[in-house]
Amino acid sequence: MPLPDRNRRIVLAAVPVGLPLESDFLLEEAALPTCPTGGLLVRSVWISVDPYLRGRITGRRSYVDPILTGSVMESGAVGEVIESRHPAIGVGAFVTGMWGWQDYAAVEAEKVLRLDPAEAPIQTALGVLGMPGMTAYFGLTELCAPKAGETVLVSGAAGAVGSAVGQIAKILGCKVVGTTGTDSKVQYIRSLGFDGALNYRTDQPYPEALARLCPNGIDCYFDNVGGELTDAAMTLMNFRGRVAVCGQISQYNDRSKDVGQRPFTEILVKQLRVEGFIVTRWAARFPEGRKQMATWWKEGRLRNEETITDGLENAPKAFIGLFRGENTGKALVRL
Amino acid sequence: MPLPDRNRRIVLAAVPVGLPLESDFLLEEAALPTCPTGGLLVRSVWISVDPYLRGRITGRRSYVDPILTGSVMESGAVGEVIESRHPAIGVGAFVTGMWGWQDYAAVEAEKVLRLDPAEAPIQTALGVLGMPGMTAYFGLTELCAPKAGETVLVSGAAGAVGSAVGQIAKILGCKVVGTTGTDSKVQYIRSLGFDGALNYRTDQPYPEALARLCPNGIDCYFDNVGGELTDAAMTLMNFRGRVAVCGQISQYNDRSKDVGQRPFTEILVKQLRVEGFIVTRWAARFPEGRKQMATWWKEGRLRNEETITDGLENAPKAFIGLFRGENTGKALVRL
Repeated sequence: MPLPDRNRRIVLAAVPVGLPLESDFLLEEAALPTCPTGGLLVRSVWISVDPYLRGRITGRRSYVDPILTGSVMESGAVGEVIESRHPAIGVGAFVTGMWGWQDYAAVEAEKVLRLDPAEAPIQTALGVLGMPGMTAYFGLTELCAPKAGETVLVSGAAGAVGSAVGQIAKILGCKVVGTTGTDSKVQYIRSLGFDGALNYRTDQPYPEALARLCPNGIDCYFDNVGGELTDAAMTLMNFRGRVAVCGQISQYNDRSKDVGQRPFTEILVKQLRVEGFIVTRWAARFPEGRKQMATWWKEGRLRNEETITDGLENAPKAFIGLFRGENTGKALVRL
Repeated sequence: MPLPDRNRRIVLAAVPVGLPLESDFLLEEAALPTCPTGGLLVRSVWISVDPYLRGRITGRRSYVDPILTGSVMESGAVGEVIESRHPAIGVGAFVTGMWGWQDYAAVEAEKVLRLDPAEAPIQTALGVLGMPGMTAYFGLTELCAPKAGETVLVSGAAGAVGSAVGQIAKILGCKVVGTTGTDSKVQYIRSLGFDGALNYRTDQPYPEALARLCPNGIDCYFDNVGGELTDAAMTLMNFRGRVAVCGQISQYNDRSKDVGQRPFTEILVKQLRVEGFIVTRWAARFPEGRKQMATWWKEGRLRNEETITDGLENAPKAFIGLFRGENTGKALVRL
């Protein structure tokens, strides 16, 4: 099959103000990249949209450099090798890497991970066996370190990370309560084995709703959301409770200041430990995490829902949908 | 010398609303307590007033049961044994315990620690070699774990805990910045070796004032104060910084809610660890901490200022003064 001669890619057109708009992104065409010496040319099969990308398009340095306007939206992707100048990875192999929202990419072999389609569907490398899965596994086990019988609260519980957190906590013998935004997601997380679920749009006020769901208080809080839900969770934390701060999706698009109840008196009086994390902290241990998650997945103890959008051109829409709660489980774009 | 027949003691008369008033306390007279079997009768020589006592007179359970109205104000004290029914502790010995704001107390021998007046002035058992000293030592070394060359910020830096924290951090090779409330306290903490000092009443706005004092950011924040100073400190924390939450004195008397900048986005993006603590967590290690602090104190590397008020009847005034910033170093009442 002759190689195509054009490459479509989505670049950041403007730094979004508040909730990103489709017009903040631009679909452009460029020449097909050249397979680098010792590297690969890949055709994207799946690309990932993740809430953390909002932090990368603020125009400011956060924990990594920002994606600048005019640059391709960098994110996780899975693709098939269509040309190889690497001795060990042939044409037809499937790999995952960070080449982002484009049809084709030239990548260095050291920057991709080879996938075995016989082991698990290749797109799980962007979800339960990839970054969101590692985020759930290491964030929960290392920072919350839940003990059997403890109560674990996870916010954003129907998302790629939250749904994995809740299921891992159940495997570890905890009572698990999740928060999410629709009744169908409440049903979804209950079907995963969650003991309780709060619909943040309807189950208010939060302190009373959470107190009903967590009659023994909260020992571990895995927070993807922030805002008033977190205010309420902090008041219910138990003595020596642990909070893993994984995301603050309620705040990502808000230009105003994140003003609310300060948590420090709760932290003091109950001797809480609150820690924020980016999963790359445990990069050296990803093989261990991937092995454990793959084992649970193959045993059927870890289910993963996917919300699939078709077409590269629809990646911005799928991304924006994350902030509207349009996805259940991992949000993916299929090319 | 015949024993006296009356005992003066200060009891909680009313749960304070906001800043405590002298009328929230009552000086009452009672019969001299009887020396218990196997125990001691002590005459108070020094009694302690500490900010944490505010949390014990709210009428609500916090990390310990509240002091109820009509009960003696329980707090640290140092006294001389005037009657003994214990084989190893004779009349004339000095001991420290938690018998609180009263002239005389009957105590169990197991609940006091014997002091050696030749080693250090006996009232240091309420300050640098006692609870405040242990709070500084364990809170800083265990939760902040500062490394040489790092920047340590301590709020409430001229108080009993804060002044010890800053000096320990200097011994450990850190750059140390403190916050306090008067120019004379700024001079005091500079005389202790602090590299920088912020007067929170005059050096505003805090973010800019702190940024000038901490040009390399803040690696460790030992917080005694909370409120807007803490909001500002959080924005200057460095990647993987540590925050030890020891006190929130700016909030103890405020009946309104503690509303301000939520810290969770800073915690997330910089992967901060924030932990609250009560020093009794390390009670089993107090002998180790006391030994290290006593060594530094004898070497002259750890200075301790005292603000002394005379007369049991003035204990409420000395206590209230803590919240007005009237003390430098350890606030003590001498009987």
